[in-house]
Amino acid sequence: MSQPRIIAGKFEAASTQGWRARWFEIIFRHDPGAPRRFDLLLIAAIVISVIVVILDSEAGLRERWGYWFYLAEWGFTLLFTAEYLARLAVVRYPWRYARSFYGVIDLLSILPTYLSLLLPGSQALLVVRILRILRIFRVLKLMEYTEAGGVLVGALYRSRRKILVFLVAVLTIAVVFGAALYVIEGPESGYTSIPIGMYWAITTMATVGYGDITPVTPFGRFVTTILMLIGYGIIAVPTGIYTAELALGLRERRKDACPDCKLAEHDVDANYCRRCGGKLPDA
Amino acid sequence: MSQPRIIAGKFEAASTQGWRARWFEIIFRHDPGAPRRFDLLLIAAIVISVIVVILDSEAGLRERWGYWFYLAEWGFTLLFTAEYLARLAVVRYPWRYARSFYGVIDLLSILPTYLSLLLPGSQALLVVRILRILRIFRVLKLMEYTEAGGVLVGALYRSRRKILVFLVAVLTIAVVFGAALYVIEGPESGYTSIPIGMYWAITTMATVGYGDITPVTPFGRFVTTILMLIGYGIIAVPTGIYTAELALGLRERRKDACPDCKLAEHDVDANYCRRCGGKLPDA
Amino acid sequence: MSQPRIIAGKFEAASTQGWRARWFEIIFRHDPGAPRRFDLLLIAAIVISVIVVILDSEAGLRERWGYWFYLAEWGFTLLFTAEYLARLAVVRYPWRYARSFYGVIDLLSILPTYLSLLLPGSQALLVVRILRILRIFRVLKLMEYTEAGGVLVGALYRSRRKILVFLVAVLTIAVVFGAALYVIEGPESGYTSIPIGMYWAITTMATVGYGDITPVTPFGRFVTTILMLIGYGIIAVPTGIYTAELALGLRERRKDACPDCKLAEHDVDANYCRRCGGKLPDA
Amino acid sequence: MSQPRIIAGKFEAASTQGWRARWFEIIFRHDPGAPRRFDLLLIAAIVISVIVVILDSEAGLRERWGYWFYLAEWGFTLLFTAEYLARLAVVRYPWRYARSFYGVIDLLSILPTYLSLLLPGSQALLVVRILRILRIFRVLKLMEYTEAGGVLVGALYRSRRKILVFLVAVLTIAVVFGAALYVIEGPESGYTSIPIGMYWAITTMATVGYGDITPVTPFGRFVTTILMLIGYGIIAVPTGIYTAELALGLRERRKDACPDCKLAEHDVDANYCRRCGGKLPDA
Repeated sequence: MSQPRIIAGKFEAASTQGWRARWFEIIFRHDPGAPRRFDLLLIAAIVISVIVVILDSEAGLRERWGYWFYLAEWGFTLLFTAEYLARLAVVRYPWRYARSFYGVIDLLSILPTYLSLLLPGSQALLVVRILRILRIFRVLKLMEYTEAGGVLVGALYRSRRKILVFLVAVLTIAVVFGAALYVIEGPESGYTSIPIGMYWAITTMATVGYGDITPVTPFGRFVTTILMLIGYGIIAVPTGIYTAELALGLRERRKDACPDCKLAEHDVDANYCRRCGGKLPDA
Repeated sequence: MSQPRIIAGKFEAASTQGWRARWFEIIFRHDPGAPRRFDLLLIAAIVISVIVVILDSEAGLRERWGYWFYLAEWGFTLLFTAEYLARLAVVRYPWRYARSFYGVIDLLSILPTYLSLLLPGSQALLVVRILRILRIFRVLKLMEYTEAGGVLVGALYRSRRKILVFLVAVLTIAVVFGAALYVIEGPESGYTSIPIGMYWAITTMATVGYGDITPVTPFGRFVTTILMLIGYGIIAVPTGIYTAELALGLRERRKDACPDCKLAEHDVDANYCRRCGGKLPDA
Repeated sequence: MSQPRIIAGKFEAASTQGWRARWFEIIFRHDPGAPRRFDLLLIAAIVISVIVVILDSEAGLRERWGYWFYLAEWGFTLLFTAEYLARLAVVRYPWRYARSFYGVIDLLSILPTYLSLLLPGSQALLVVRILRILRIFRVLKLMEYTEAGGVLVGALYRSRRKILVFLVAVLTIAVVFGAALYVIEGPESGYTSIPIGMYWAITTMATVGYGDITPVTPFGRFVTTILMLIGYGIIAVPTGIYTAELALGLRERRKDACPDCKLAEHDVDANYCRRCGGKLPDA
Repeated sequence: MSQPRIIAGKFEAASTQGWRARWFEIIFRHDPGAPRRFDLLLIAAIVISVIVVILDSEAGLRERWGYWFYLAEWGFTLLFTAEYLARLAVVRYPWRYARSFYGVIDLLSILPTYLSLLLPGSQALLVVRILRILRIFRVLKLMEYTEAGGVLVGALYRSRRKILVFLVAVLTIAVVFGAALYVIEGPESGYTSIPIGMYWAITTMATVGYGDITPVTPFGRFVTTILMLIGYGIIAVPTGIYTAELALGLRERRKDACPDCKLAEHDVDANYCRRCGGKLPDA
């Protein structure tokens, strides 16, 4: 008689019993108990390794503790290498995991330290560090399983197309106004090219306004005022989209479908199906 | 026996059959198939032509690839000229199209390249480029036909009057505070005139804050604090307007009540009363 | 037999017939026809007079057109003086009008030009101008009568107490962080006093960020990061308040009260009073 | 026969009658009458003492009024000391009060003035001042009892977990982009370490944009544009969270359905079903 298959997301355990099944559950799943503890330990290790990278970038600290940072860097690299090999060992289709988003990130986050042995140099080491920082995304990955994170990500996911349309509109306005100030102000005000103008236009529309590039001619300032008023109105759009989606997500509906026409999503106080008029099961 | 007329928006095909009817459908309509493919090709051409203009503005790139940019510029100009003539050929009232918003943009976006032959000069060429960039607005025009864009534009359209009232209020505050700091700070702080003060006030209220002009006197900074608190509260207004409109748009209800139990507020797609199951009047 | 009294807001016409009743309706009321035309003419005059003041502040323009600006200034002053006297003449209790908000603004907006005859000097003239600019508030006063403006002002009015509480919280945070950076950074970074620190803190929380004063010490930057994250979360508050109020304002309720217990504000689909269970009049 | 116990929040009066019971009510409770007057007097004293601290930090004012500021500082210290001792005297478990949040703040806000006698020095005095400023938090504490403040704080409290998740996401993005620009731009542009880069990234995402550190390389500016667009979209998240929570708070409904007609979703204050008039179960 065959054991039930062990699934975690889109991955499956290599075997249904024995140490590989056990470790698959610990590494890939997020159930309370050992798997949850493993997740928390892993996140802690990731956060600490990132903090080491951050501290190591401080010249003053590197001078004093550089040696220990170097040791910690190698320690975490070996630790995460062991984890990566374990993942390959216990999953049924290792190649599918290796090609997955986090599989790639896991590999990228350990590879550079080894590469730094072959081709040394501060620049290469920096690349190592920045790649390793990506590992912290796993924290977010985990958060998807918490209720709060789920609601936020869900609303973002549902409004992805609206946000895309919005971004296209923002980019269009950025091109038009960036080119306009490139023509009006010209290089002497810092608008040396249309891409620079677009960078300035997005800085302005996003209401960041560094001030590293600003219009000086009266007409340029007039056009900038118009751009700011546009940005003023347009900053409402993503907020509106997201809030509306979130409100819809929080608005509760009857989950059970109509027995006759199978229409789901009825109001809380509905007794009859709004499409076919069939009686709904009493709530 | 007469063919049905072929309509696209406010335009009508020149003839109901033959190549002009066929091309009218391809050029003016957005149905799946050939018309949709034409739209996508056109957008691709517009985007690429704009990218060429953007790259051409980079001094470094122009030196190396200027010649190819020039060729591409002429290539696109001829392409869009052919498209413009085709539109005039297949539409029933060419003059009405030529006078329409996109008709004017289409003409403006090809004219300057020809003008640059008669009156050369970098400035003129720049004007050519900025005008050509307007062509990308067609991307937005198309997006109006996608569901996501429709919702966003619809909500913006419904709240246009509220936003106008809001902009008048913003301008009024900008005049009052711009003049106030022109009086308080004066030219030595950069407030050389009330228009400059208005530019600064809008920069502040829109929370852009370039920092190219800032108050230095204690009283000027106090007034600025008040302006920022006003802007803090007032930035809520467009967001509130837009979110409320968007929520209304996403959650509209039938106004007519159930004839049997007088229950109002049914879903838009409701045929039967959700409370008593009675037939609702057809919408 | 006595005529009905003529009311406009909190003002009453001096007489119920004759030229004063006629002019009271024209000046104080906003009905279609003559009164509406008068309002529009007045707004036009206000806007133009303000534009003259704005243009006059441009050194270049004043040199060339200063004389005409001066004439326009006096023209508008005499015009608004006549309007002010007319208002006093046709209203029943002139003193009550003179003490009202717009009565005071009307007087303040004409007085300074006359004062400038007694005590000349550019500074005095500037004061004249800034005061005159206040006159544009009448545009907003009128807008209260338009539907769109009414909704916006109504929501702002309902949420005034929440916004006040919010402002107190913002000021408290500004004091704490302003004093913190005054201690941490000190005068050499530009934090020469706690008020300057508060000015900087509000600039930061309002996400304006001029950059005229910025932290330079690592600890100061760390505290600033905390302040920005607080501001990030807190900018949601006024938007949330306003949006919720606006949504409530747009949400419709039955206007008629319960005949038994006089409870107003029932749901649209209510047949019985939710408090006393009494039958409501059919909608 | 025993008196009822006198409670205020989590504190209890030391005795049920006599002056201690009387003063406990005045100091710890917020009922109309004497307790409310005491609260208002206390807030007034706190605000004035903070204003004195703020004015004292102005070099110019300190020179002229420093002596009076010093006197006021001691006056308020003695006043608040008396208040602190009174609180200890009238509460049943003084130690529990002393350990409570406001008990600690109360002590911290008076202690440093006495310490400044033992160890003088401007730095120490500044610490005194900043600590004393914390006392203004009591204003917020009181506001919790006002309706408006309660709604705002309540919504913030309900959405605390979502906001936490959001902050983690913001910090993650800050680490990634901060490290990215530390690598791309390097020290010569001011990105001397990853912490500085994170400070810059949060300045950018919060749309503050001081401009003290800005990218100069084309690639750095391109990455910055992406960061700004992310921040543009992400600024919607806290607003959306808070608005949705606030809307839920303003519009909460009874969950239990009408026993007769099964209509769910009644107002919180409903005693009878709005549809059939049937009595609802008492909440």
